[in-house]
Amino acid sequence: MYERQHIVAAARGDEPMDTIIKNVNLVNVFTAEIYPADIGIKENRFSAIAPYHQGSPAFEMQGKVQIDAKEKFAVPGFIDCHVHIESTMVTPDMFARALLRNGTTAAVIDPHEIGNVLGMEGVEYMVQASKGLPVHILTTVPSSVPAVPGLETSGAVFGAEEIEKLLQLPEVVGIAELMDYVGVIKQSPRMAGIVQKGLDLQVLNEGHLPRVTGRDLHAYLAAGVNSDHESRSVNEIIEKLRAGMLIYIRESSVSQFADIAAKAWQELPYAANIAMCTDDVEPNDMLHNGQMNRVVRRCIEEGIPAPLAIRFASLNGAIRYGLRDRGAITAGYLADFSLVDSLETMDVADVFVQGKHMVKNKEILVDIRSSIPPIGKNTVMIPSLTEQDFAVHAPVQHGMVTIHTMEMTEIGTTKLGTLQLEVTDGKITELPEDYVFAAVVGRHGQNRKPFVGILKNAGLHAGAYATTVAHDSHNLVVAGKNARDMLLAAQNLKASGGGLCIVQDGEKMAQVDLPIAGLMAAEPIEELGPRVETFNRVARNLGVKVGRRSPSMALSSLTLTVIPEVRISDLGLVDVGKQELIPLFQN
Amino acid sequence: MYERQHIVAAARGDEPMDTIIKNVNLVNVFTAEIYPADIGIKENRFSAIAPYHQGSPAFEMQGKVQIDAKEKFAVPGFIDCHVHIESTMVTPDMFARALLRNGTTAAVIDPHEIGNVLGMEGVEYMVQASKGLPVHILTTVPSSVPAVPGLETSGAVFGAEEIEKLLQLPEVVGIAELMDYVGVIKQSPRMAGIVQKGLDLQVLNEGHLPRVTGRDLHAYLAAGVNSDHESRSVNEIIEKLRAGMLIYIRESSVSQFADIAAKAWQELPYAANIAMCTDDVEPNDMLHNGQMNRVVRRCIEEGIPAPLAIRFASLNGAIRYGLRDRGAITAGYLADFSLVDSLETMDVADVFVQGKHMVKNKEILVDIRSSIPPIGKNTVMIPSLTEQDFAVHAPVQHGMVTIHTMEMTEIGTTKLGTLQLEVTDGKITELPEDYVFAAVVGRHGQNRKPFVGILKNAGLHAGAYATTVAHDSHNLVVAGKNARDMLLAAQNLKASGGGLCIVQDGEKMAQVDLPIAGLMAAEPIEELGPRVETFNRVARNLGVKVGRRSPSMALSSLTLTVIPEVRISDLGLVDVGKQELIPLFQN
Repeated sequence: MYERQHIVAAARGDEPMDTIIKNVNLVNVFTAEIYPADIGIKENRFSAIAPYHQGSPAFEMQGKVQIDAKEKFAVPGFIDCHVHIESTMVTPDMFARALLRNGTTAAVIDPHEIGNVLGMEGVEYMVQASKGLPVHILTTVPSSVPAVPGLETSGAVFGAEEIEKLLQLPEVVGIAELMDYVGVIKQSPRMAGIVQKGLDLQVLNEGHLPRVTGRDLHAYLAAGVNSDHESRSVNEIIEKLRAGMLIYIRESSVSQFADIAAKAWQELPYAANIAMCTDDVEPNDMLHNGQMNRVVRRCIEEGIPAPLAIRFASLNGAIRYGLRDRGAITAGYLADFSLVDSLETMDVADVFVQGKHMVKNKEILVDIRSSIPPIGKNTVMIPSLTEQDFAVHAPVQHGMVTIHTMEMTEIGTTKLGTLQLEVTDGKITELPEDYVFAAVVGRHGQNRKPFVGILKNAGLHAGAYATTVAHDSHNLVVAGKNARDMLLAAQNLKASGGGLCIVQDGEKMAQVDLPIAGLMAAEPIEELGPRVETFNRVARNLGVKVGRRSPSMALSSLTLTVIPEVRISDLGLVDVGKQELIPLFQN
Repeated sequence: MYERQHIVAAARGDEPMDTIIKNVNLVNVFTAEIYPADIGIKENRFSAIAPYHQGSPAFEMQGKVQIDAKEKFAVPGFIDCHVHIESTMVTPDMFARALLRNGTTAAVIDPHEIGNVLGMEGVEYMVQASKGLPVHILTTVPSSVPAVPGLETSGAVFGAEEIEKLLQLPEVVGIAELMDYVGVIKQSPRMAGIVQKGLDLQVLNEGHLPRVTGRDLHAYLAAGVNSDHESRSVNEIIEKLRAGMLIYIRESSVSQFADIAAKAWQELPYAANIAMCTDDVEPNDMLHNGQMNRVVRRCIEEGIPAPLAIRFASLNGAIRYGLRDRGAITAGYLADFSLVDSLETMDVADVFVQGKHMVKNKEILVDIRSSIPPIGKNTVMIPSLTEQDFAVHAPVQHGMVTIHTMEMTEIGTTKLGTLQLEVTDGKITELPEDYVFAAVVGRHGQNRKPFVGILKNAGLHAGAYATTVAHDSHNLVVAGKNARDMLLAAQNLKASGGGLCIVQDGEKMAQVDLPIAGLMAAEPIEELGPRVETFNRVARNLGVKVGRRSPSMALSSLTLTVIPEVRISDLGLVDVGKQELIPLFQN
């Protein structure tokens, strides 16, 4: 009758605990201390904690199961404040399985990628497929579908009306990263309308504000958006912390800022507004480097005291999302926690969810599989193509032209370049070393010829590389040295329903199938990860050297029209700063 | 159309601010820093903050009104996490007026006293009368009406059903201090049922846990109650902080613990779970010593750094109660703040609420008066009484008896004593020096003769002192040296509808009328406070020396059957530890 009756009785000592973790080093995120304690668990919750004084616990608990955890550390389940499941390339159940092994027991997802491909149906699928998993998944509704209307074509367009509908779905807690920050700051009707929905419905408006400081930072906050995970410098973080923005320290496969965050923390050791997120982690990266435990490990390496780093990764996220009984190890809270061997490695050995032993010595004890069937098996809707479609068509028949190029830098950003080229029969079909063709093929039924541009420093010296994972609209991107291989790579992905493909001299060299919305596969990352590794090896052999951890993502941000300075879309070359299309050929 | 449009435009610099606070020392509660800044306010919110670098602001703002605040400190509006309006003896509007002058702009009230007198109608009145005031008032539903059933008679009894109904009222955010902590720990059906309602309805279950540590502390937390404002020692606070309990540092008229809280903080300087409350502040005490600003001042005096003390008094309370845009001075938050001359005195000079200048140089600029008519004008429902009713009736006609007494200690607690007395005609009518009669007269229509006990060390050497403010059931308590004055004092309060009265030699010496539920008056504390002062002077002249700040409260906790060790009620002498009635006469 009373939900907590037995849990309270066990705390009093009138009933045995179900499980006792004996003599563990408890990471207390309330007080930022670590000390030995016994942890008593009853049913789904922590029931009592007995700290040690002079070698023995404050009180002795009886328990059905006793686990001697001497030398181990008990760490609250991590709460990932912002993550795109799609970046891990697996379905929500497989994602939860992967998170669990890394000690993450709650995550706030942003189904932005599938939203751009499948619209509201995609978001609804993610919400449904995230239900009932051992990782507590909350959803934020993608705010920027597409990221920048008019500069690219996505599979759906969300306005305030769509956002409002999606906000009614269960476990939806907010509006996800408002990437069109210019729209928010300038109060464009679309973005002001979306933010207003969040305010009206009293959900969280989550931010995305790279390199914005001063008045514009305050304008963004004034609009009602007050979190960020996109800082690029120590000073930027300090300014944002002072302005009361909740900073999610991010270590993703794409970008890392534990180092600058730790430096900012050293300036502001009492800052209250820090949490953590992973944003985008590729399957092979997660296998090798972990997930939220990686963020924590990196912060500790950079000098944030371990219990504070762990507070940022647990309690502070719980507070953000109103999870009142998560994020700490104390009586009355849900018993979501892990045992780690060392705070230096943050290697997770055992994981408990609501008191249940889910991972034991790194082996998962439960079968995690959603009963919701995947959707989006036919999303690579590209037109019929020929080799001709992958050449650059010049405004003259013959002679020299000056063409705008996109140059990739060492640090993964891009800048606008120019190149003088010879035109033959109205086309450019050959490029100097260091340059490749980069085409975007609309795959949302827009039935438009590919936009073909020129890319410097991708490193690809032969063949073609295609992907349907191309942020944020996820059209099909293919880069290559020749049209034949480019066409073949694109056709392979159409046939497979999406994923990654490398073709050389007319032959398929590597392929990763991602048949769900062209973004995900329904398999464990232990299986998908090695395939991505193989793909990466082939890509590296072909010279792909783009400045990110995994060549599988080499082309995926070429189309990200919100990251400076120049990007491509199915509509053309995009000047990100000016938010306008720029002509391919210089006058 | 978009709520924040002009606020954002002002942040950008495209519109002027309404008000600019120039060159103020900004107390930044996010980072726990103090630095000079300009604060821009537009409409009801902070729009932008420009910190100073080398003597000038990061950006210049234009504003219709500019206030030069050099040397002053800008402090976020305080949030009082737990307070009984009734203790200030005024109605909610007058209470809000008093809080405002002290820089408190939000308060979580517990209408426990009026609930004990008028039941659900009393709570509803407080909720209604708290609406639309410049202080944002949230309500927690009194959980312990009466505090201890069976040991006293109150005007109402709340079970889970009543609690559930009250939780539906607007602005109700939780269940107030669960004082029957023994019931919570032992999971008595009544308390387990009430806590379960809080869990079911996802509101906060607020705690009250004096001197409870170890297993029982964990049992209370396990039950789902995780705040406290009743600690009595440094070690108790440390243990509770480690257990994840949210500690409200309390400085009330009754008890103060800034000193021990500061010592606990020195042990745990990174503790995240500290906020503040005032609980009970009498009108004259508030006039002289302030309200939440007093708690802050005391914490600073005891060594907590000012910006952290202010964080506890603002941001941490906002987080507790899910007030996402209150508790700090930053763009997008409601512009609730004050200007103080010094962090040492915490004297509040100016107060703004939602951008509106409400208090200027300590003068209130607005008329604050609720349109809700007060209720409870006829709540002193005592039976017809004679002098005989105020004698102690002995079990023998003549001879010596040993009687149990209640002894007040220097620090305001009580203990059980004994006294040998001569009985004449079956009655005790005279007492040694240091002793007075103390009677509790049921005023909730229970139609029962007074219970008359004997009290040591009250200090009253003549006359009689009566009050209808007698926690928690608020029956009429009268202490005196003789039955005639006691009867007269009680009758005076019946006639006035309640309050405080002192009678000597058949003459009324001082009276404070509290005609609303016998607890409150509808007047500013600037008027009521001096009357209480007069009353206090008369009481002191009669020798009242009870160990509290104000003699007006001398008798008010004699009946508090949850505070150790012995108390009296309309039903008899109560052993608080054992929670049972004890016989007046020793066998």
